[in-house]
Amino acid sequence: MREEAEAEALRAKACASEVALFSLDRRNAALASMAEAIRHSQAAILAANQQDCEEAQQSGRKEAFIDRLTLTSQRLQAAAAGLEALMALPDPLGVQRSFLAAEGIRIEQRRVPFGVLAIIYEARPNVTVDAAGLALKSGNTVVLRGSREARRSNAALVTALRDGLTAAGLPVEAIGFVANPNHEDVDHLLSLRGIVDLAIPRGGAELIERVVSLAKIPVIETGAGVCHIYVHAEANEAMALSIIDNAKTQRPSVCNAVETVLVDREIAPQFLPKLDERLTARGVRLHAAPQALAWMPHAVLAGPDEWRTEHLSLDLGVQIVAGLQEAVTHIERFGTHHSDAIVTDDQAVAQRFLDTVDSACVYWNASTRFTDGFQFGFGAEVGISTQKLHARGPMGLSELTTYKYIIRGEGQVRT
Amino acid sequence: MREEAEAEALRAKACASEVALFSLDRRNAALASMAEAIRHSQAAILAANQQDCEEAQQSGRKEAFIDRLTLTSQRLQAAAAGLEALMALPDPLGVQRSFLAAEGIRIEQRRVPFGVLAIIYEARPNVTVDAAGLALKSGNTVVLRGSREARRSNAALVTALRDGLTAAGLPVEAIGFVANPNHEDVDHLLSLRGIVDLAIPRGGAELIERVVSLAKIPVIETGAGVCHIYVHAEANEAMALSIIDNAKTQRPSVCNAVETVLVDREIAPQFLPKLDERLTARGVRLHAAPQALAWMPHAVLAGPDEWRTEHLSLDLGVQIVAGLQEAVTHIERFGTHHSDAIVTDDQAVAQRFLDTVDSACVYWNASTRFTDGFQFGFGAEVGISTQKLHARGPMGLSELTTYKYIIRGEGQVRT
Repeated sequence: MREEAEAEALRAKACASEVALFSLDRRNAALASMAEAIRHSQAAILAANQQDCEEAQQSGRKEAFIDRLTLTSQRLQAAAAGLEALMALPDPLGVQRSFLAAEGIRIEQRRVPFGVLAIIYEARPNVTVDAAGLALKSGNTVVLRGSREARRSNAALVTALRDGLTAAGLPVEAIGFVANPNHEDVDHLLSLRGIVDLAIPRGGAELIERVVSLAKIPVIETGAGVCHIYVHAEANEAMALSIIDNAKTQRPSVCNAVETVLVDREIAPQFLPKLDERLTARGVRLHAAPQALAWMPHAVLAGPDEWRTEHLSLDLGVQIVAGLQEAVTHIERFGTHHSDAIVTDDQAVAQRFLDTVDSACVYWNASTRFTDGFQFGFGAEVGISTQKLHARGPMGLSELTTYKYIIRGEGQVRT
Repeated sequence: MREEAEAEALRAKACASEVALFSLDRRNAALASMAEAIRHSQAAILAANQQDCEEAQQSGRKEAFIDRLTLTSQRLQAAAAGLEALMALPDPLGVQRSFLAAEGIRIEQRRVPFGVLAIIYEARPNVTVDAAGLALKSGNTVVLRGSREARRSNAALVTALRDGLTAAGLPVEAIGFVANPNHEDVDHLLSLRGIVDLAIPRGGAELIERVVSLAKIPVIETGAGVCHIYVHAEANEAMALSIIDNAKTQRPSVCNAVETVLVDREIAPQFLPKLDERLTARGVRLHAAPQALAWMPHAVLAGPDEWRTEHLSLDLGVQIVAGLQEAVTHIERFGTHHSDAIVTDDQAVAQRFLDTVDSACVYWNASTRFTDGFQFGFGAEVGISTQKLHARGPMGLSELTTYKYIIRGEGQVRT
C-alpha cells in the first residue's frame, strides 16, 4: 500500500543517520544476530513459505517460479551463512583520502552510506535476507518491497531479521518492509525524493524497465543480460566450443549466460556443424539466422525478435557476421551492455574488441559467466549494473556507498 | 528543434567510440586548436554576441542577465585560456587497477568516457567553451543545448570550436549543438535512452528540477545551494563574523554562498547585534526570524519561504536554534545538501555536526565558498553535484568518466 510504503520509508529515514554512524563491530554484531534469528525462526518461516507456495500452485504458476519461491531448511541455512560471510568483509565506510587545499583547509573525503535504499524485487524470498544484510553492512537502512506472491515468506523473514536487530540493540526501523504490496506502492516509493536515496530493482527486464521509467529518484539498473560471444576467424575452435557450452549451459537462467553467438562467415562452414553437434547434445535449442541454418541440422530458424531476446533458458541464437566491425555493430544494436566476449588467437583483433564494445564486462577467451561479484573476488554481490552512472558490472559493498567532503579550518575565508 | 537535437545526438554517438580511444596527446592537441580558433574567430563571435545582447535589451531583460550573456575580448581570452589549462591536467582515462580472479582470469578496471554527454544550460555562452573542453579532455562527445537568448553567440563559438577540431584532425560531430533551441528539444534529448549517456543541467534550481523530472536518462543534479552557517554557543565570535561575511558577500550570486545563518539561542543577544552591524555595513539585507528581530535593528521580518530560498544576492536569512540538534534538523528540512558549516571551538560538537549533516560538503570553521573544483585542487570544475549517485560535491574530470571491466583468459570457464 501507498501509505504503508511511505510510512516505512519515513521510519527508515528517521534512523538513517544513526545507523550510518554505527561502528563496524556493531554492524557485524547485528549481522550475527540476524543470522541467528533466521535459524531460530526456521519453523515459522518455512510454514509461511509453504502457504505462499501452495497459493502459487493453485494459481497455476510455473515450476521455475515455484522453485525460486520455495525455501527449504538448506536454503535458509545458506541465507544465514550469507549474513555471516558479510561479517568478514572489510568496512566499506570511512576516510578514503585526506588532502590540503586552498588557504590550508584540510579536506577529507569520507565514504558514507546513501541513507535509505529501496530494493524492489520479485518472488525470491532469499533476496529479503540478502538485501537486508548488504544494506546493514554498508550502514544503510532499507525498504524491502518484495512481490505479493512471497508476502508471507518475506513477512516471516523480516520478523526474524528485526528480532536480530533488536537483540543487537539496533533500531528495527532500519529494515523497512511493505507487508501488503500492490502496484501503487512501487510508484509511490519511486517518487519519494529526499526520503529514499537510491532504488535498486532486482529482477527481470520488465521490472527494471518499469522502475527506470517511473522513478523520480536515483536508480541503479541491474541484471538485464543479452550477452554475446563472438567467434572470430582466428579462434581456437575447441576453446570457442568449450566457452560457449559453459556460458549457455552451466546456469542458463542467469543474466550473464550467453544468448547470442556471432560467428565469422569465413569459418562458419567448419565451425557451425560442430557447434550444432556439441550444444544439441547438451540439450540446447538453437535458433539460427537464415545464412547459418544450412550448416546447423538441429537448428530452427530464428524469429524476428531473436537478437533482442534474453532467453534465460537452454535457447541460443546464432548469427553470421562479416568480421569484427559487424560483430561490434550487432552487439551495440541488440545487446544490453552487460557482458560480451570474443574468442580469437589474434591479439590485435581482441584488443580492438575490448576497446570498442561498450559493455560493463568485455572478455577475451573466457566465459561470460564470470561476471559475478564473488567470481570477481568482491566477497558480496549487490547485483550487476548495466548502467554507466555510479556503478558498472558486478557491484560489491562499496557501490552501496557515496561520499562526502569534510573540511576543517581555523577560520579560513576565500579571497 | 526535436529533430535537430536527435540528429546531433546520433552524430555524436556515431563518433563516440572513436573519440573515446584518442590518445591524451591527440585530445590535448585538439584543446590547443580549439583555443586558437576561439582567438582567431574573436570578431565574428563578438559580433554575434552583440546581436544577442541587443535582442535581450529590447526584450527588457535585467542587467544581471545581460551581464552573464555578454562576451568581451577579455572573457573570450579567459575561455581560450581555460581550454589550455585543461591540457595540463592528467588523463582521467586509463587502467585504474588490475587483479587476478577466479580460475586465474586477469581483470582490468579501466576508466572510460560515458560516451555522449548532454549539457543543458542557460544564457551563459562561456559554458559552451567550458563544457566542450571538459567533454573532450575526458574522451566524451557532447551535445550542447544552450538557451535561445544566446543562440547566435553559441553558434559562433561552436563554429570556432569545430574549426579547432578539424585543424586537429578530429570529427566535428564530437561537438553536437542545438542551433534552434525550443522547449521540445530538451524533453526529447532527455528521452534518448541508449543514445545520450548522461545529462548535466547547469543553471538555476528551476532548470535542474525540470531536467530531473523529465529525464529518462541518467542525470547529475548540480548547483542548487541553500547553504547554512551554524554559529554554535562556543563559537569564536570574530571568526564567525568573518566567515559569514565572506560566505555571503565575496560572491553572492553563486551556489556556495551562504543563504541562512543559524545562531544558538544562548549567544543570540550578544552575537546578533554584531552580525547586524557587520553585514549591514557590507550592504546585506537581513531577513530575521521573529525571535531574532529584536536584536537586529536593520533586519526585516523573514517571509514564509525564507528558509527554502536560494537568494543568490546580498540577502541573508537569520534563524535562532536551541542547539546542535535543532540546527541539524533545520538544515535537513530546508537545505539542498550542498555546503553547510559550523563555527565552534568545541571539537566534539563540531564532529557531531560533520558526521550527521547529510551534505556534499560539511565545514568546521571555514567558509562555504571553498566548495569549488579549483579551490579543492581538482584543476577543473564540471559543476557541484548535490546528488549522492556517482558524484558528490565539486566534480572534476574523473567524474565525467565511468569504467569497464576487461577480462582476459586462456579459455577459462566457470565450474
